[in-house]
Amino acid sequence: MLHPQLAKDSVFIRDLPLCQLRLINDQNYPWFLLVPRIDKARDIIDLDWPSQRQLWHESAWLSHWMRQEFQPQKLNVAALGNMVPQLHLHHIARFEKDVAWPAPVWGKFPAIAYTQQQVSQILDRWSDFPYTPE
Amino acid sequence: MLHPQLAKDSVFIRDLPLCQLRLINDQNYPWFLLVPRIDKARDIIDLDWPSQRQLWHESAWLSHWMRQEFQPQKLNVAALGNMVPQLHLHHIARFEKDVAWPAPVWGKFPAIAYTQQQVSQILDRWSDFPYTPE
Repeated sequence: MLHPQLAKDSVFIRDLPLCQLRLINDQNYPWFLLVPRIDKARDIIDLDWPSQRQLWHESAWLSHWMRQEFQPQKLNVAALGNMVPQLHLHHIARFEKDVAWPAPVWGKFPAIAYTQQQVSQILDRWSDFPYTPE
Repeated sequence: MLHPQLAKDSVFIRDLPLCQLRLINDQNYPWFLLVPRIDKARDIIDLDWPSQRQLWHESAWLSHWMRQEFQPQKLNVAALGNMVPQLHLHHIARFEKDVAWPAPVWGKFPAIAYTQQQVSQILDRWSDFPYTPE
């Protein structure tokens, strides 16, 4: 059951073995979420160790895709969740020219929503990038 | 080789199999770093997969200790590194009563250094918490 705030702020991309992969609806940064489909997990260590391993495997897979796709200066990977208690892992491609650089992105600038066409283009890009299990 | 900014902002606690464990010298929050002893790693995916697994195992171990020790509302775990390129993983125990809550801690408030006695007390607490390999 996805937290309503996450549902509001982001767009479904696809299901991975453990997580739902979502795009944060904000043109300011290429920004993706992994949300484990495990009820009541808040912190990473609320997952058992096999699930943590799977989470990090999916995180690495997503990170490789983001590096290939966006060639960022830096990848930010973070589990914060002070606002939304449901466990979710941020992945943000950062650039020296982005609006918030070098600060963290949270709470800095209002989101600029994608157009439907832009979202479709991003979703299309995933088709060539199959998930490979550990 | 530790980045000089990390050396300046934090205190050595102990070496784990992969990482140096350090305490950020800021009384505002219980805030620890894991710094893999691997040259030129900037992003998590610059580590090979066995090293990533080891990083996450050490992260889970640290997180369990922090939960037991501080009973935080939330654990924030993050690899940002926009300022300091050397790969380092933040672990911050967050409370509804902390000065930055619910915002992320970075760039919010100036650090308040610990006294030497406080640092010694924190270091002493680790003695009862052995690292258990995966």
